[in-house]
Amino acid sequence: MEVANKHVTLKTHIEGAPKESDFELKTSPLALSLDPGSGEMIVKNLYVSIDPHQLNQMKSCSLLQKTSTGFDGIALGEEIEAYGVAKVVASDNVDFEKGDVVMGVVTWAEYSKIRRNGMIRKIDPLGFPLSYHLGILGYSGLTAYAGFFEICKPKRGEKVFVSTAAGSVGNLVGQYAKLHGCYVVGCAGSKRKVQLLKEKLGFDEAFNYKEETDLNSTLKRYFPDGIDIYFDNVGAEMQEAAVANMNTFGRVAVSGVISEYADPGKRAAPNMLQVIFKRIKIHGFLAADHVGLFQDFISTTSHHLRNGELCPLEDISDSLDSIPFAFTGLFRGDNIGKKIVKIA
Amino acid sequence: MEVANKHVTLKTHIEGAPKESDFELKTSPLALSLDPGSGEMIVKNLYVSIDPHQLNQMKSCSLLQKTSTGFDGIALGEEIEAYGVAKVVASDNVDFEKGDVVMGVVTWAEYSKIRRNGMIRKIDPLGFPLSYHLGILGYSGLTAYAGFFEICKPKRGEKVFVSTAAGSVGNLVGQYAKLHGCYVVGCAGSKRKVQLLKEKLGFDEAFNYKEETDLNSTLKRYFPDGIDIYFDNVGAEMQEAAVANMNTFGRVAVSGVISEYADPGKRAAPNMLQVIFKRIKIHGFLAADHVGLFQDFISTTSHHLRNGELCPLEDISDSLDSIPFAFTGLFRGDNIGKKIVKIA
Repeated sequence: MEVANKHVTLKTHIEGAPKESDFELKTSPLALSLDPGSGEMIVKNLYVSIDPHQLNQMKSCSLLQKTSTGFDGIALGEEIEAYGVAKVVASDNVDFEKGDVVMGVVTWAEYSKIRRNGMIRKIDPLGFPLSYHLGILGYSGLTAYAGFFEICKPKRGEKVFVSTAAGSVGNLVGQYAKLHGCYVVGCAGSKRKVQLLKEKLGFDEAFNYKEETDLNSTLKRYFPDGIDIYFDNVGAEMQEAAVANMNTFGRVAVSGVISEYADPGKRAAPNMLQVIFKRIKIHGFLAADHVGLFQDFISTTSHHLRNGELCPLEDISDSLDSIPFAFTGLFRGDNIGKKIVKIA
Repeated sequence: MEVANKHVTLKTHIEGAPKESDFELKTSPLALSLDPGSGEMIVKNLYVSIDPHQLNQMKSCSLLQKTSTGFDGIALGEEIEAYGVAKVVASDNVDFEKGDVVMGVVTWAEYSKIRRNGMIRKIDPLGFPLSYHLGILGYSGLTAYAGFFEICKPKRGEKVFVSTAAGSVGNLVGQYAKLHGCYVVGCAGSKRKVQLLKEKLGFDEAFNYKEETDLNSTLKRYFPDGIDIYFDNVGAEMQEAAVANMNTFGRVAVSGVISEYADPGKRAAPNMLQVIFKRIKIHGFLAADHVGLFQDFISTTSHHLRNGELCPLEDISDSLDSIPFAFTGLFRGDNIGKKIVKIA
């Protein structure tokens, strides 16, 4: 049996902010049968994740030099890898069978072929919507959980600043920090997001960075007693202002630098003299290094979810065709919470 | 009894690189008697330390805003604090008596008055020259020891890069790293220093940064397998190049940023995307937080010194009058190793 598999590909390598015209929808025939012994699987994608860091794989420099982005670059016309929740439709892998619901690295496509050693695992929905396994119970959630608890090592009462606080990771960091007894301020790019952070997610304060002219004094205003933890999703001048307002032994967890992805000329240049005398730690991390925390993360987070103490923030679009618009929207600030596209 | 106490003061606040004319030698009468109950001491300085970070206290912004440098600013005409080795000549402090040899915070002066809670302690010379207690057995040594072992957590065989490697701290970091079984490359600012690092201190490689036009490729040449540890004494573009050449889980210990002290426009802007995907830790520190290591540091270091496995690198000038020239020389790269002025 063969299907016509619609998928998103890259028409041109991207420099700067992505445009919808950088992408192309293609349809290729895909046989739903597998070579015995191949260890492969074919999955039908239900939801795929739309993440800002994917832009780094779409740059031409990524093809030339893996070390410039840390990820394999995507060749033009190739399928684009992404996290997804999917259903197995054919399997030559002994660990999976037809009908299994899985999550892991798929592609922006209706169907994805998963290699023998593909990063994929079965999921137990735990009674939650499947989309949660891409956000609050997935990689975004683990990034927030590991980054906040393992990298930042927060203490009750500490003062926490989160950038891109209405984004997939930031909103969860703020919520975990509140549950942990911290004072939390978030920044975001619209009035609506700021309201949501304060009214729905329980942030102590929030501000729209687009309305601020001097981030240094903005942070001084929100943190008269200084910042202990900065969870950085944005990089550049916001990181500089956070370091300038940081207390001694402050910690910066660098989870993402979205403002630098689309503008390679943008760089954070924190004052190193302050880094020294305030003994600040600036620490880049990936959730992948903290999979040992996964069970702990899932049980803590699902417990809070059931008690209504954590609010899942999802922004779901419909159909594969909407992926280019959804992806470019991340850089326009369209999304509130985890951006997901429902495929089937 | 009263003495004419010669001391160095600041004639003008310094912006940019320091000039000898920024300083002034003054003589004031000092009574060698103390008010009973004051808890004070008067010490006669034998050696004083000349350190680049002192420049940060000499800027006018330091007076306005302690948080901009982390240190109290120095008012014009005031005595200038510095580490020193001294002999007690009068004491109202029960813990010290006349004739004790001490080390700690004194001033650039012939005699210093030490307050009740002054940072000062008696020293056991351990059979070494007294000047060692400002360098290899003093604060510089502890900075190298704590920074390398506690902050960088080195493993045998790791690749270590040290900037300002012929400076007071850098030369010791390189020597500790060699004793620990690491591959060590240092950079310095002259042919003579480079030779000394390789021939006398046992660095695997060393280079003169002034002869290099592209630090990124320079480091690629010396570290074909990447850098695991960067001990940063200089900041700015060298830090950026080190981060660009760093391996995953690399550590940057930021001990000093001499190139940024004299030029506030200079800033390190390491690529944060690389900081994330290589999970790099950039960590500012002060030796003062690691005094718990002091006994361990002293016993390890004096043991290596006695076995001829560590080479003390001192650069000693004579007389108080030479302090302005010695201090400004730090920023011209005059000194090789720990810069000390012998007062008496």
